[in-house]
Amino acid sequence: MSVKEALKESLISFFEYKTPKIVHIKSKRVGVLNRIIQTLIIAYIIGFVIIAKRGYQEFSGIESSVTTKVKGIVSTKNLTADDFNDNYKDDKDLYIRVWDISDLVVPASENGAFFVTTNMIITPNQTLGICPEDADVSDAVCDPKVKDWCVDKVFQLGHGVSTGKCVNSSRKDVHTCQIEGWCPVEKDDYPLKNNTPMFTATKDFTVLIKNSINFNSYNVRRRNIIEIDNSSKLQDCTYHPDYNPGCPVFVLNDIVKGAGQDYDTISQYGGVIGIEINWDCNLDFDVKYCVPKYSFKRLDDPYTQIAKGWNFRYAYYNSNYRTLYKATGIRFVLLVSGSAGKFNFIPLVIKIGSGLGLLAITTIICDIVVLYLQKGGKYYKDKKFQYVEQVDNDYTDVLATNLRKRTASNEQNTPLSDS
Amino acid sequence: MSVKEALKESLISFFEYKTPKIVHIKSKRVGVLNRIIQTLIIAYIIGFVIIAKRGYQEFSGIESSVTTKVKGIVSTKNLTADDFNDNYKDDKDLYIRVWDISDLVVPASENGAFFVTTNMIITPNQTLGICPEDADVSDAVCDPKVKDWCVDKVFQLGHGVSTGKCVNSSRKDVHTCQIEGWCPVEKDDYPLKNNTPMFTATKDFTVLIKNSINFNSYNVRRRNIIEIDNSSKLQDCTYHPDYNPGCPVFVLNDIVKGAGQDYDTISQYGGVIGIEINWDCNLDFDVKYCVPKYSFKRLDDPYTQIAKGWNFRYAYYNSNYRTLYKATGIRFVLLVSGSAGKFNFIPLVIKIGSGLGLLAITTIICDIVVLYLQKGGKYYKDKKFQYVEQVDNDYTDVLATNLRKRTASNEQNTPLSDS
Amino acid sequence: MSVKEALKESLISFFEYKTPKIVHIKSKRVGVLNRIIQTLIIAYIIGFVIIAKRGYQEFSGIESSVTTKVKGIVSTKNLTADDFNDNYKDDKDLYIRVWDISDLVVPASENGAFFVTTNMIITPNQTLGICPEDADVSDAVCDPKVKDWCVDKVFQLGHGVSTGKCVNSSRKDVHTCQIEGWCPVEKDDYPLKNNTPMFTATKDFTVLIKNSINFNSYNVRRRNIIEIDNSSKLQDCTYHPDYNPGCPVFVLNDIVKGAGQDYDTISQYGGVIGIEINWDCNLDFDVKYCVPKYSFKRLDDPYTQIAKGWNFRYAYYNSNYRTLYKATGIRFVLLVSGSAGKFNFIPLVIKIGSGLGLLAITTIICDIVVLYLQKGGKYYKDKKFQYVEQVDNDYTDVLATNLRKRTASNEQNTPLSDS
Repeated sequence: MSVKEALKESLISFFEYKTPKIVHIKSKRVGVLNRIIQTLIIAYIIGFVIIAKRGYQEFSGIESSVTTKVKGIVSTKNLTADDFNDNYKDDKDLYIRVWDISDLVVPASENGAFFVTTNMIITPNQTLGICPEDADVSDAVCDPKVKDWCVDKVFQLGHGVSTGKCVNSSRKDVHTCQIEGWCPVEKDDYPLKNNTPMFTATKDFTVLIKNSINFNSYNVRRRNIIEIDNSSKLQDCTYHPDYNPGCPVFVLNDIVKGAGQDYDTISQYGGVIGIEINWDCNLDFDVKYCVPKYSFKRLDDPYTQIAKGWNFRYAYYNSNYRTLYKATGIRFVLLVSGSAGKFNFIPLVIKIGSGLGLLAITTIICDIVVLYLQKGGKYYKDKKFQYVEQVDNDYTDVLATNLRKRTASNEQNTPLSDS
Repeated sequence: MSVKEALKESLISFFEYKTPKIVHIKSKRVGVLNRIIQTLIIAYIIGFVIIAKRGYQEFSGIESSVTTKVKGIVSTKNLTADDFNDNYKDDKDLYIRVWDISDLVVPASENGAFFVTTNMIITPNQTLGICPEDADVSDAVCDPKVKDWCVDKVFQLGHGVSTGKCVNSSRKDVHTCQIEGWCPVEKDDYPLKNNTPMFTATKDFTVLIKNSINFNSYNVRRRNIIEIDNSSKLQDCTYHPDYNPGCPVFVLNDIVKGAGQDYDTISQYGGVIGIEINWDCNLDFDVKYCVPKYSFKRLDDPYTQIAKGWNFRYAYYNSNYRTLYKATGIRFVLLVSGSAGKFNFIPLVIKIGSGLGLLAITTIICDIVVLYLQKGGKYYKDKKFQYVEQVDNDYTDVLATNLRKRTASNEQNTPLSDS
Repeated sequence: MSVKEALKESLISFFEYKTPKIVHIKSKRVGVLNRIIQTLIIAYIIGFVIIAKRGYQEFSGIESSVTTKVKGIVSTKNLTADDFNDNYKDDKDLYIRVWDISDLVVPASENGAFFVTTNMIITPNQTLGICPEDADVSDAVCDPKVKDWCVDKVFQLGHGVSTGKCVNSSRKDVHTCQIEGWCPVEKDDYPLKNNTPMFTATKDFTVLIKNSINFNSYNVRRRNIIEIDNSSKLQDCTYHPDYNPGCPVFVLNDIVKGAGQDYDTISQYGGVIGIEINWDCNLDFDVKYCVPKYSFKRLDDPYTQIAKGWNFRYAYYNSNYRTLYKATGIRFVLLVSGSAGKFNFIPLVIKIGSGLGLLAITTIICDIVVLYLQKGGKYYKDKKFQYVEQVDNDYTDVLATNLRKRTASNEQNTPLSDS
């Protein structure tokens, strides 16, 4: 056969159809087993992968912008001298007043979060100077009889730099090293007796959450404030999971309750609450069904006994003095997530492709049953397998002759090609 | 056959080659159909999955750090008394002055965002005291003829706690409840007539964006400030999408325009603008081609009529008074995204593997055509399928004999095994 | 054959078993090759995909809350007049004092980040007024002999609005335009000679990091503060990668060193350091092994010569003056990542499915070897392929007859169906 002929034959062969030869075994038992396994796999692919997980859709990520506005007023005018701890008797007027958002929501603007103060220690009129260290800084407690106790000591967890002297502290009968720094130092305890948080009334504060999202791939933009609402309705409504799930105004107490927490308890040491806004949209339906679901969750661990809750210090500075605030409270963090799916041919084809791959498992299992686990396996094996001897070196010529004959007989157009 | 022999045979069989028997049908029509479908699938795999989606690459996530520095000066010295609303005539000197970054960019430092004030209400010298509630708080509007109208009322959206009295409000002919809180209360309208925003000149402010990224898997670090620039060039350039796409200094107006918005319009109520920095890098090419693309997008919804735009309040506290600011403006949010791909054998093999799975679709379609949709289907079916009867219980012995013979004949080294 | 019979036959056929016919070639060479390739693919699937990449697990995302508390005190009382640059001789008392957290950690509370000041320029008592522009603003340098040099000039990178006059600047022999704005303008250089950062002692500051995470799918909650620690132990310990990897208290210097940086060097111009907390948990083991790994990395680019490091300005406002601070320092950013895996049947099945797809490669490669790359390829080809002629139009009748006969003979229950 010349090269030209060989090429021609290859080309012809290339455009002819090749399909696997299938052994059709008339065994109902294995046939039914086969169909059951196939049905299970197909049911899994169609039911779970394609329908339940929406495998026929292409999904788009989410781009989100969220802003919040807290509203509310707290009055602590009902507190009396008896409510305060003894060491706050002189300072109590600092705390008996009316508080607004600018007093209690600190910092004024945070990206995707807001903090509401629930308890506070105010240290007014601190100046740079000399005063006794806080008796709670255990390193700084000294014995005035021992000379040089305080010399060359550094209190990294304290409030200043030791001057070397041991002096009376603000706590009775306790001496502490004298320090240089912002004086006087902050008190250790909160103002109210029994660790009562001062601003539990912030539970009635409301927050308006404005969340605008964008599904980039589909250029679909949605906002959590639904269009039919008008301004007056918006100011009046408050979110309720069942009766008013579309209202964007939340009472803080509802949020905390939704997270399974008690506002009064969390107020004591502070904490972190997540406000989750989930947009799970199916854009094959009308876009009006694409609305957010809110859920609430406490994010920090309430069960720890050490370094419990959340507090931080900030100060307002004036010319030569400052007012220091230790604010304990609840940080609310907004977590926006979601995705949008829309029918697309490509993911569907891919899912079907992998499904076909999985179907191969059927044949493997049934073959094992047919060939090894039932009577007559050897018989089926003989049918499934066509045994071909190896071409030995010695034997090649004979075979070649044989083959040439067979090829010739094939060319005589016998439909029974394999005998 | 002893167990030993059976094991030996199994072992030999294990190391012999098994390949599916293929029925080669000399039908050009189906052959061409077969090749067309195969070509489509292969083209999809190679063209789309492997080349277009860079399926031959392993992708790395991005780690990003972004800092911003806004520069600019605004003067409002050209404002005259006529520009102000009537109720601002006395306060107008607070607004006619020069403003710098520390006055207008609040807070001074935000993680991945910055805010520029475009309009402002200043309420200077607020003290804790007693004053009439704002007439805009509709609950607080009272009728002085009705006794006890204001008693025991709480205005959660107001500015203080009701004292119970009904007094003249700052608005003519309107009475409101007297409140205790930070007094006087903030005005309802912005200083300038016709809702003109005060700081539209901030459109000329510039922001230097420094973005440094890291592709962890490949330990490739890139920054948006390109090395060839020197400091003087950097201070002079301004970003332009066509003429200067590599400059990291942006004019705010260009950003807002790039997001399809008008600076003067957005200034009125504020808004949120996203500055997207996208690093989509192909590390199979030189790393110098790995540069960011900037794009801009308005993130909040400009079409809402309720709770429009973005504003927040902050206060500077002094000993016993504070200055309250209501700042309306544009929050710019930096969104860094991206990924880097590099050739890797494993994803390539996986893509090829799934491709082979998909190729099974070809055979399924062509088999349907060959066997059911064309003349002679029954003939091809006979060729494709080898029908094997079930091994009946009654028949087993006969078969066994038969099989033993066939096996023997196989062992006589007949190359034609299946007849 | 009636429709009813055909349907019945189809139904019977549907529940019968079909399996590909396999050609079993007794060639050890190709058999071994076949098994080697199969073993490689199976080893890859099992070893890499399933075991190393934990392909038998379903993975859950992470939800994280992180708060930080920095502690420390810096004294700059040891500075003398000689340490300061000449233009700071009068101001030096502003800098020689004790500094605490509220002075150096700005802003007081940031979401997932904190900033520690390492160098500072204080511009006290700025008032709105008239003063010479900074000589560093090159546009503003003027020649007093040239008339109207400064008229109608805008210095967008300067500190105010030009009044039109050219006056003596704070720098000797340099004239600059007079501006209206916050006066006096900030100095160009840092207080200490040789660019020495003022607060390198902040390297001894400690930060307590509280990180609480949640694997939603498995409802597993973990915190980085391990339960066995008690409060006193917690206050005493400091993190060490080898000796104390579970302690949540970090010395800033250790963090910076861990990122491969020198604290004194980074203090000069500031920078951004990432504190990575990685939770990579295998929930098939006891949950107590689910602990975080900390790592540190410099996120900004230390090698740039332009716009180096990180600094920002903030101001404290009083009635009619303000104190402006330029703070250079290190921003620490907390990056929490992680995932938890647990055994799940579905991902395992999917991995096995794709593995089966890949196994098809074996047959393709071995077929190429058997049929084209070795002696006797034609012989094996004849065995693998069963050649079937096309059904010609002319020939259809003959075939049909032929087929009818064959079908009849099939129905006579001949077990040897394909001959």
